[in-house]
Amino acid sequence: MICLGIDPGVGLLGYGIVSQLGDDMRALDYGAVATAPGRPLSERLGALYAEVCQKIEEYEPDIIAVEKLFFGRNKTTAEMVFQARGVVLLAASLGGYVPYEPKPSEVKLAVCGNGTAEKSQVQGMVRCLLGLKEIPRPDDAADALAIAITGLSLAVYDSANRVTVQ
Amino acid sequence: MICLGIDPGVGLLGYGIVSQLGDDMRALDYGAVATAPGRPLSERLGALYAEVCQKIEEYEPDIIAVEKLFFGRNKTTAEMVFQARGVVLLAASLGGYVPYEPKPSEVKLAVCGNGTAEKSQVQGMVRCLLGLKEIPRPDDAADALAIAITGLSLAVYDSANRVTVQ
Repeated sequence: MICLGIDPGVGLLGYGIVSQLGDDMRALDYGAVATAPGRPLSERLGALYAEVCQKIEEYEPDIIAVEKLFFGRNKTTAEMVFQARGVVLLAASLGGYVPYEPKPSEVKLAVCGNGTAEKSQVQGMVRCLLGLKEIPRPDDAADALAIAITGLSLAVYDSANRVTVQ
Repeated sequence: MICLGIDPGVGLLGYGIVSQLGDDMRALDYGAVATAPGRPLSERLGALYAEVCQKIEEYEPDIIAVEKLFFGRNKTTAEMVFQARGVVLLAASLGGYVPYEPKPSEVKLAVCGNGTAEKSQVQGMVRCLLGLKEIPRPDDAADALAIAITGLSLAVYDSANRVTVQ
């Protein structure tokens, strides 16, 4: 099973693709897509959309997970992030997916077993679970991998709790 | 010249298409697209995207205007609205447009000549400028028509101030 995890943002959008076979989890790809601040917002969103669609096409993930966000103190940043998130959810929808939308606490719980874990703990566990030599950089990529791991655990939970009507 | 104006929202997205020939402005189409609260957000955004693309295809506007938004007190509503706005900007971008993004005060100024006009004044002027018998309903449609009128006035201003290099 393959999951594409996305950490939405306009300036930097993190993505991580994780495959799972039994207990073996691997990072197939991860990174961050940057868009230039000087370009019109519509064009930046267009560039992000194209990248997300390209990852979906390339890896044909079974599931997609997009982190649920909450407003911080910086409203301008939040406005940008939510506009990027809308575009990511759209890319998933047009690809035929209904994405998982885990909250930050759910990501921490799935990756660290603790919903209030520190960022550094999450990053350390991502490195460990995926057998990577170093913590993925930038932070947006590590976050996206954590979101992908969470998507996989939510899918396992869902399939275990599915009621089969015969 | 034809402008598509959009008042973004997830539950209700307002649209208005206004044509201008000299001093004559007419509403070619207006209304609001509703999406059901029970559906996944990704699907609702997909439905809004399809409607916006359909309007662009049908009317082939010369310009698109999408209101710039500011956070109100209700963060949950704001989160939804910004995600819808991202999808609208994307639809414009993929259609080859760089949309105008007037602030609410700019819409009031363009329509009423007063950047602090009341909502009812804006709606009354929309009815008057477009020669409509009644104020368009719902409010989202009237707002979208005001945004379209603003887009047309910004385009006229831009073309009047364009520097021609020979």
